[in-house]
Amino acid sequence: MLNSDQGFMARALELARKGLYSTHPNPRVGCVIVAAGRIVGEGWHARAGEPHAEVHALRQAGERARGATAYVTLEPCSHHGRTPPCADALVAAGVARVVAAMQDPNPQVAGNGLARLQQAGIEVLCGVLEGDARVLNGGFIKRMEQGLPLVRVKLAMSLDGRTAMASGESQWITGPAARAAVQRLRARSSVVLSGADTVLADGARMTVRPDELGLGAELSALAAARPPLRVLVDGRLRVPLDVPFFQAGPALVATCAAAAARERFLEEGHELLAVPGSNGHVDLRRLLLALAARGANEVLVEAGPRLAGAFARQGLVDEYRLFVAPKLLGSSARPLLELPLTRMAEAPELRILDIRAVGEDWQIIAVPKGQG
Amino acid sequence: MLNSDQGFMARALELARKGLYSTHPNPRVGCVIVAAGRIVGEGWHARAGEPHAEVHALRQAGERARGATAYVTLEPCSHHGRTPPCADALVAAGVARVVAAMQDPNPQVAGNGLARLQQAGIEVLCGVLEGDARVLNGGFIKRMEQGLPLVRVKLAMSLDGRTAMASGESQWITGPAARAAVQRLRARSSVVLSGADTVLADGARMTVRPDELGLGAELSALAAARPPLRVLVDGRLRVPLDVPFFQAGPALVATCAAAAARERFLEEGHELLAVPGSNGHVDLRRLLLALAARGANEVLVEAGPRLAGAFARQGLVDEYRLFVAPKLLGSSARPLLELPLTRMAEAPELRILDIRAVGEDWQIIAVPKGQG
Repeated sequence: MLNSDQGFMARALELARKGLYSTHPNPRVGCVIVAAGRIVGEGWHARAGEPHAEVHALRQAGERARGATAYVTLEPCSHHGRTPPCADALVAAGVARVVAAMQDPNPQVAGNGLARLQQAGIEVLCGVLEGDARVLNGGFIKRMEQGLPLVRVKLAMSLDGRTAMASGESQWITGPAARAAVQRLRARSSVVLSGADTVLADGARMTVRPDELGLGAELSALAAARPPLRVLVDGRLRVPLDVPFFQAGPALVATCAAAAARERFLEEGHELLAVPGSNGHVDLRRLLLALAARGANEVLVEAGPRLAGAFARQGLVDEYRLFVAPKLLGSSARPLLELPLTRMAEAPELRILDIRAVGEDWQIIAVPKGQG
Repeated sequence: MLNSDQGFMARALELARKGLYSTHPNPRVGCVIVAAGRIVGEGWHARAGEPHAEVHALRQAGERARGATAYVTLEPCSHHGRTPPCADALVAAGVARVVAAMQDPNPQVAGNGLARLQQAGIEVLCGVLEGDARVLNGGFIKRMEQGLPLVRVKLAMSLDGRTAMASGESQWITGPAARAAVQRLRARSSVVLSGADTVLADGARMTVRPDELGLGAELSALAAARPPLRVLVDGRLRVPLDVPFFQAGPALVATCAAAAARERFLEEGHELLAVPGSNGHVDLRRLLLALAARGANEVLVEAGPRLAGAFARQGLVDEYRLFVAPKLLGSSARPLLELPLTRMAEAPELRILDIRAVGEDWQIIAVPKGQG
């Protein structure tokens, strides 16, 4: 059973989740104002540059905010960004108590917002439903704390762990419900990242198609207005500009061979990012650091066994999303990950967080052991 | 919601399940006698040669059976076997109504037991919770209807669909809870079937270890008293008699090379079964027919990718039990099944019936599409 602080925070988290597809690079934040045990204001952050959750909630509460308790899923900001500090707004509104789910993960500001509230005589409690709040903004938190985005690797496989026939034939391993789930994974990500093999062989676009998200009108519109950056890892610039991936809109190409081709890509509306590498392979950790520096919270890797295997081998994966189709592709078919190991002791251990049916397919969420 | 007939039948099925590990070659059967809305007698069949469920329940009910309703999970028998016909016993006890979950699946007797009851003036209803009753005795039903046992293939794999390293290193992919679940699968089976590769490379015994079943004392004792027949498929008789498999007790060896070696195996307490084959490979369908003729209801295949793949290729698998360990063994590791396919259209489609956590591992139950 939740106590009343937890109950109101659960509602604030529910509001925060409405920003799942649109707040990046900002975190998803919800706020509830409670006076005399009743909710008098609710708000959530929808998009960077627009008001924060606290502002929406305070506006709705109006005069009833005076002496009330504010529940926020993240420590209110204390710095002037594109909007004024929310800590100041809470003080000005006269709230008596602020309950936060977690501190601001940015080590340079953590606790400053709460301290400011306390200095103004407001009672402060922090850490209510913190676990849930951290899961909601795992990417933002990792970027703030480590300068790296959260990396989620999506894989679709048969029950015997295969992704495609030896010929490359692979379309439609999974059904429509799994494909909608993948669309939602793309929409919540700051970056959807793929490799030359996938973009060449499958004609993949890696776009978000709002009508396939299976969300309501409001969230679909928000998702459509804030699509993820599509990133192609192409160390040797093997992919020509006339493939569907480039035709589908502006993209970023991460390569070790940037200098010569920059103009050609710019003319077509794409950007080249020079990343160090070796043997024509982009240094993936450097690439992730660069993406985080641009504000990427969550990166979805949708790639073939070579590139996905490279992320796995280098320990860069935070979460696997395996979509498992109930069929057997057989032992000649392509492996899930190119990951050549010789001894059991080398085998990466994972922890399965969740397995659930998605249409006729199943989704497994697994994280490297010790994480998550 | 269950109606009252379904509610009493559900109890009868619960009783029947107590025979899960011990009734083979007989079916698992439970019986409940209900007088004036209350249960006055309960029984279940424990072992072949011992009284049937109806007899136990009628004994407990005594005089209260007169005018009562009997719920049985399978049509009462009407023929003289090792015990007298249960239909006669129900008539003699004076029950007024018999509710059966399903008819006897043996096409030569189906309906005779119920007809006998009706002729004696007893009201008969058949088909209550039939689906559950059929699942409980899937092996017995298949043997009666098709002369073949139900074939269940157990596989243990990593999340990327691998069973062992390329070197063969494979012990302990899954944890203790999954191993206990495998012990229970063995114990419920009439036959545990393995191949020469597994018995040679892993030193597998394929025995039931009652203390590892994780069952109560009564069921463990029943399981120990009725262990499955251990069958080794060894077309060319490659496995010497001093391996742990043969040292662990009497076994049946199915081979295409029986004649010369029969005496040698008999002296050690084992039996050789001559099965036709080609290129030293036993004809698996013929083997299954022979096992069914010996009363095998459920066959558990615990074999390597070659033999398990052969069952899959020949369409002989009724159910897969995949135990999935949350680790990645990588792309050099051994495949789940040797099943060389070239086109997606050839890929066998399955239906996943159930996925559940078993300790830190997961169990997936899947059946070929169109079955189950």
